Amino acid sequence: MFLSPCLSKNEQGHLTIGGLDVPALAKEYGTPLYLMDENLIRETCRAYNASMKEHYGKDNFLVVFASKAFCAKYMYRILAEEGMGADLVSGGELYTAIQANFPLDRTYFHGNNKTEQEIILALDAGIRRFVVDNREELLKLDALAKERNTVADISFRVKPGIDAHTHDFIQTGQIDSKFGVALENGEVMQIIAEASKLSGVRVVGLHCHIGSQIFETEPFGLAAKVMMDLIADIRAKFGITIDELNLGGGFGVRYTEADHPVLIDEIVSVLTDAVKESAKEHDLELPFLVIEPGRSIVAPSGITVYTVGSVKEIKDVRTYVSVDGGMTDNPRYALYEAEYTAVLPERIEAEATETVAIAGRCCESGDLIGKEMKLPPVKAGDLLAVLTTGAYNYSMSSHYNRVPNPPVVMVCDGKAKTIVRRETYEDLLKNDI
Amino acid sequence: MFLSPCLSKNEQGHLTIGGLDVPALAKEYGTPLYLMDENLIRETCRAYNASMKEHYGKDNFLVVFASKAFCAKYMYRILAEEGMGADLVSGGELYTAIQANFPLDRTYFHGNNKTEQEIILALDAGIRRFVVDNREELLKLDALAKERNTVADISFRVKPGIDAHTHDFIQTGQIDSKFGVALENGEVMQIIAEASKLSGVRVVGLHCHIGSQIFETEPFGLAAKVMMDLIADIRAKFGITIDELNLGGGFGVRYTEADHPVLIDEIVSVLTDAVKESAKEHDLELPFLVIEPGRSIVAPSGITVYTVGSVKEIKDVRTYVSVDGGMTDNPRYALYEAEYTAVLPERIEAEATETVAIAGRCCESGDLIGKEMKLPPVKAGDLLAVLTTGAYNYSMSSHYNRVPNPPVVMVCDGKAKTIVRRETYEDLLKNDI
Repeated sequence: MFLSPCLSKNEQGHLTIGGLDVPALAKEYGTPLYLMDENLIRETCRAYNASMKEHYGKDNFLVVFASKAFCAKYMYRILAEEGMGADLVSGGELYTAIQANFPLDRTYFHGNNKTEQEIILALDAGIRRFVVDNREELLKLDALAKERNTVADISFRVKPGIDAHTHDFIQTGQIDSKFGVALENGEVMQIIAEASKLSGVRVVGLHCHIGSQIFETEPFGLAAKVMMDLIADIRAKFGITIDELNLGGGFGVRYTEADHPVLIDEIVSVLTDAVKESAKEHDLELPFLVIEPGRSIVAPSGITVYTVGSVKEIKDVRTYVSVDGGMTDNPRYALYEAEYTAVLPERIEAEATETVAIAGRCCESGDLIGKEMKLPPVKAGDLLAVLTTGAYNYSMSSHYNRVPNPPVVMVCDGKAKTIVRRETYEDLLKNDI
Repeated sequence: MFLSPCLSKNEQGHLTIGGLDVPALAKEYGTPLYLMDENLIRETCRAYNASMKEHYGKDNFLVVFASKAFCAKYMYRILAEEGMGADLVSGGELYTAIQANFPLDRTYFHGNNKTEQEIILALDAGIRRFVVDNREELLKLDALAKERNTVADISFRVKPGIDAHTHDFIQTGQIDSKFGVALENGEVMQIIAEASKLSGVRVVGLHCHIGSQIFETEPFGLAAKVMMDLIADIRAKFGITIDELNLGGGFGVRYTEADHPVLIDEIVSVLTDAVKESAKEHDLELPFLVIEPGRSIVAPSGITVYTVGSVKEIKDVRTYVSVDGGMTDNPRYALYEAEYTAVLPERIEAEATETVAIAGRCCESGDLIGKEMKLPPVKAGDLLAVLTTGAYNYSMSSHYNRVPNPPVVMVCDGKAKTIVRRETYEDLLKNDI
């Protein structure tokens, strides 16, 4: 029922996060409210690092957090302390990392359309790696680096032609993506040939990312093998040594009890075995290995707490439970019909006998948290918590209907602290003339 | 090709908005950029008011703008000057109207889950009408009004059981909505009976809203008739006179050349004829009539201008044109697969010979403006404009990937002025601790 190890219940029958009483936190900070457990985030970072160390080697890897899952200054402080890297996809994320004094020699700059302004910001900041998406970006980066008398270390984003959900090599599908250069039609080799002649960039690595919320290990092993074969081909064809292999993320989490994610150690072991075997086979040095978990590091640490405003039972049709948030703080049902689990923090042991729609407060029919969710009987004024919201909730929040964003409160060692303040109406108007 | 009367072309073959050169505006303000034409907004407000005056009577109506389509201080100033009302769905929208000195005796407060804080803000501000959604809200409002020794004038949101897209009365469907009280199962009569006994509220009106982006007049006439029948039933049953009828909005606009919206005058004529006929039939006084257009007032006035960053032609698969915005400034494809029209502002006469996907800059596969859009040949550095973006673009924008929101620049009488400033990286971090 709890889905995540940071959640439990106390003697009052209340939901707890990091040991703290959720109804008490809701009373103190108001609703809607994002709550996150810092210890779980740190433990997950450590689990990735320990697994990589055990299976791959002491200094030959970096675990890079995908910032887009949850970007806030405080998060970069945690990542810095835990020896993690950061994957950035915009000037805004880079700016946030800079403001948090995050070590920029651990940052990877991704994205299918980096602007000139962003490339300049990243060059001047001295980020570790540009993950170059396309030819226009390569030429723009090369020119801007030369202007600055510097050389940018780059990786290329490769479409390895693997669909994580079918385990197949497919000819259209993965190749039909806005990201990266394709393997199977020769684009990768072309762009490496071109890059090798440019003096403003140095080709250091390759990157791929095969999907999201994946519950199997096999596609990761397959992707690792495909990429290692490519590294061997590049050496054979151009005499270029690729020192770094970045295998991206996509590791699944538990949104509902039907989700069964693979253990971190198992994923890492499959990935690293594939890389090591392939290195042996091709007589290659082991590359510096990068993985990019995002969701799996933060999603299970977070919950969102709402107050129920009305319960509308429409006989023989459906019951709508309206909460004081919705698609503005969690657009994932509206976008993907993503499934979540909801509980009543004040009566955590009550049996979930009802099937209801949990509706948000926006003037929009599609503003739902879920259409058929299991809940105990619930009434106006009750608290309602949605679980596994630590990823892609705060970071995707909007001001639709001019609804301010909830605060993010971090729980750590029995204490709670605000890490992102609740937005005010004044904040919403700050740029209005 | 232009879809909207505020768009045209000039001698240089450039797109113009309100007569101003779009490439010149893009150069001055940067991209991504929301551009809106003030004169078209005002003309549309005037067209609604003139039609209502002609078809219904001089002082017996209010045209109420649905703020959620586009909420900004400047917009409320336009609405105030044009004699329009405002439909508000949150404390944030109300706060914005207050800050713009909008006359609050022209405001309607909607929403399926108004918080206590918001109800207090609205009571204290002296808004015109609470459009009550449900029983919990009714009781909360009644209690809060009494505490303040005041009486709140209310309407009820009614589900009239009409599906605008099928023209049918249906038993599930419209009734399966988080909004309002249903007609066919007796909820409306129940809540009116209950409200009539409360001293903190006065039942003044009824409200319904049958859908969005509707291209026919018949369902509006049907809804008007159903609501007038209800007003007669309420008089017969309770002796209560309903003085105000609010028929909502939902009037369609042109996103593509395949869209053929009904003329304002035609919609208003169908609506008002139905009300007048029904009033005669039931021997009722003509109610004060309210309509709530949102999209139709702002959507055609707006365009979004982007810069193309890369053009990725994947042979035999698809061409991806990446722009420097996307789902963060226009999430409507990601949410609804909404269709748009794109043009090249610098070569407005070039023939649209290509079919491409226009992709946003977010690290998300689904970040598209459209998957199969017609464009002339295009290259990195070109400007690209998406049309009909004046509604539900700025108001639905997010900071996903920490991308700052574009500015809104209003064009009026040959001049351009910023009405919402471009967000800065500092803005994004304002609440980070």
